[in-house]
Amino acid sequence: MAQIIDGKAVANRLDEKSKAEVDAMIAAGMQRPGLAVILVGDDGASQVYVRRKIKACQKVGITSIERRLPADTSQEDLLALVHELNNDPTVHGILCQVPLPKHIDTRLVLRSISPDKDVDGFHPVNVGRLSTGTGGIVPCTPLGVMILLQSVIDDFKGKDAVVIGKSNIVGKPVANLLLDAECTVTVTHIYTHGLPDICRKADIIVAAAGAPRLVKGDWVKPGAVVIDVGITRVMDEATGKEQLLGDVDFDNCQHAGAITPVPGGVGPMTIACLMANTVQAAKALQTGDNRPAADYEDAPSRSMFGG
Amino acid sequence: MAQIIDGKAVANRLDEKSKAEVDAMIAAGMQRPGLAVILVGDDGASQVYVRRKIKACQKVGITSIERRLPADTSQEDLLALVHELNNDPTVHGILCQVPLPKHIDTRLVLRSISPDKDVDGFHPVNVGRLSTGTGGIVPCTPLGVMILLQSVIDDFKGKDAVVIGKSNIVGKPVANLLLDAECTVTVTHIYTHGLPDICRKADIIVAAAGAPRLVKGDWVKPGAVVIDVGITRVMDEATGKEQLLGDVDFDNCQHAGAITPVPGGVGPMTIACLMANTVQAAKALQTGDNRPAADYEDAPSRSMFGG
Repeated sequence: MAQIIDGKAVANRLDEKSKAEVDAMIAAGMQRPGLAVILVGDDGASQVYVRRKIKACQKVGITSIERRLPADTSQEDLLALVHELNNDPTVHGILCQVPLPKHIDTRLVLRSISPDKDVDGFHPVNVGRLSTGTGGIVPCTPLGVMILLQSVIDDFKGKDAVVIGKSNIVGKPVANLLLDAECTVTVTHIYTHGLPDICRKADIIVAAAGAPRLVKGDWVKPGAVVIDVGITRVMDEATGKEQLLGDVDFDNCQHAGAITPVPGGVGPMTIACLMANTVQAAKALQTGDNRPAADYEDAPSRSMFGG
Repeated sequence: MAQIIDGKAVANRLDEKSKAEVDAMIAAGMQRPGLAVILVGDDGASQVYVRRKIKACQKVGITSIERRLPADTSQEDLLALVHELNNDPTVHGILCQVPLPKHIDTRLVLRSISPDKDVDGFHPVNVGRLSTGTGGIVPCTPLGVMILLQSVIDDFKGKDAVVIGKSNIVGKPVANLLLDAECTVTVTHIYTHGLPDICRKADIIVAAAGAPRLVKGDWVKPGAVVIDVGITRVMDEATGKEQLLGDVDFDNCQHAGAITPVPGGVGPMTIACLMANTVQAAKALQTGDNRPAADYEDAPSRSMFGG
């Protein structure tokens, strides 16, 4: 039977570490970490996400600063707000909830966030730092994937890793992190020939294609570790209920060494990593130390980012 | 018999294109591209490299600005010079020849160069842009590798590419470019198990390990394209003469589809790509257009960066 990697439990442990770190910062006379969340307009889903993030802040002791702007806010005013938050010493992380209204250039706004406060990790400077293994803020979902892997893998060196999907927000950063961990990394995608055979040789599979149940049981080598980042909403025709499907045929992967479920695997990690990133940014801004947040490794592994 | 990819000939064609581009810029009333080369101290090899770069500028019609500083120049003065060049509208590319004297923080100096003038392409912002496929300046050697590949490959989509070596200056950026071109990309390195078998499946092999004749003839699939980035100087014991060895056992790879020699393959491309990058930077700074320099594709391929 495959070990089920419990994303909720790992996320809870990460939150506890973040909370302990915040307490240690306060005890050391440092400022409490502050996360500013910008919400433009009244998109329903965005409001739910923002509420969850604010609740997570309360859990770990981060001060949350919510800045709501009307849907017709000008780009200029939004940029001015980002500028203000960039220069506010009590703010250590800035998150601008997307999607933004259509009259606003999303890329421009996201790039105006200071790289040191970019807790989403998507600023070109942070992407560059990640790509060259020189610190910076690691995007939340890729960081979550690595922490889940670290919870079951002790030594990454020389392991064959296959990443399915080459998006800028998951596939590519995960590939970079696996490469930094000394895995041999193959990045696959829609144009890849012979994906089943490529997967069959893998010690680690990270599926981030957004293709429900793409990875079949017989693509997975006995003992391999499988992380399923895919989440697709589908309607179950029999019950009429909505279902969340991962990229992996979970039921037929019981010969895997360890595997994440969907939901309950990668999902719960994302906000916990956002909190961890905010704590790290707050420390880095106050001490000049810019180690990546993945110092928050999960037992039993040693940190793969150290040294 | 494998087709020998003549790096000198491809580099000459690239230089001709750069020259034509400069002529077209002048004809359109734009400024002539200017490349500033900073040389600190009197390292012999650095002087040779700088001289070659200045000669290349003359060949394609780029204004070269040489700024020599004594070996005991303070870091402050060097940063002030970079700042001056960043703000000089007649300078479109800035190159700081390394190694720098030990009392100077090389990373800090290189990062102080404006990303828009960073014709080496190593600034984190340019690394980030490359990693996310959003334009920017592509480092010279990886760009040269891609142009050599484009000279013999028409369609990259779905090709199996293996990159040997994961350095920040060659392996990783080459992997990113191959991924953008829709190849399935495997990055291998010193901890990789079963490298021969991984190579045997490859349509494209880019060897950048710095390990003389690592890649044996029987690692190469008939018809595969092999780019040899390695250059190691060794002494030939029989003749007592210095020899340059690549990472590939060239003599036993005559069943390859196409292969670069060492020397005369990737080597000549690097300075030609520096010139191409300077021309592109000069255009981008004057027009706001930041397409990567790899628009300089070589016949017969279509540009893989377009669209």
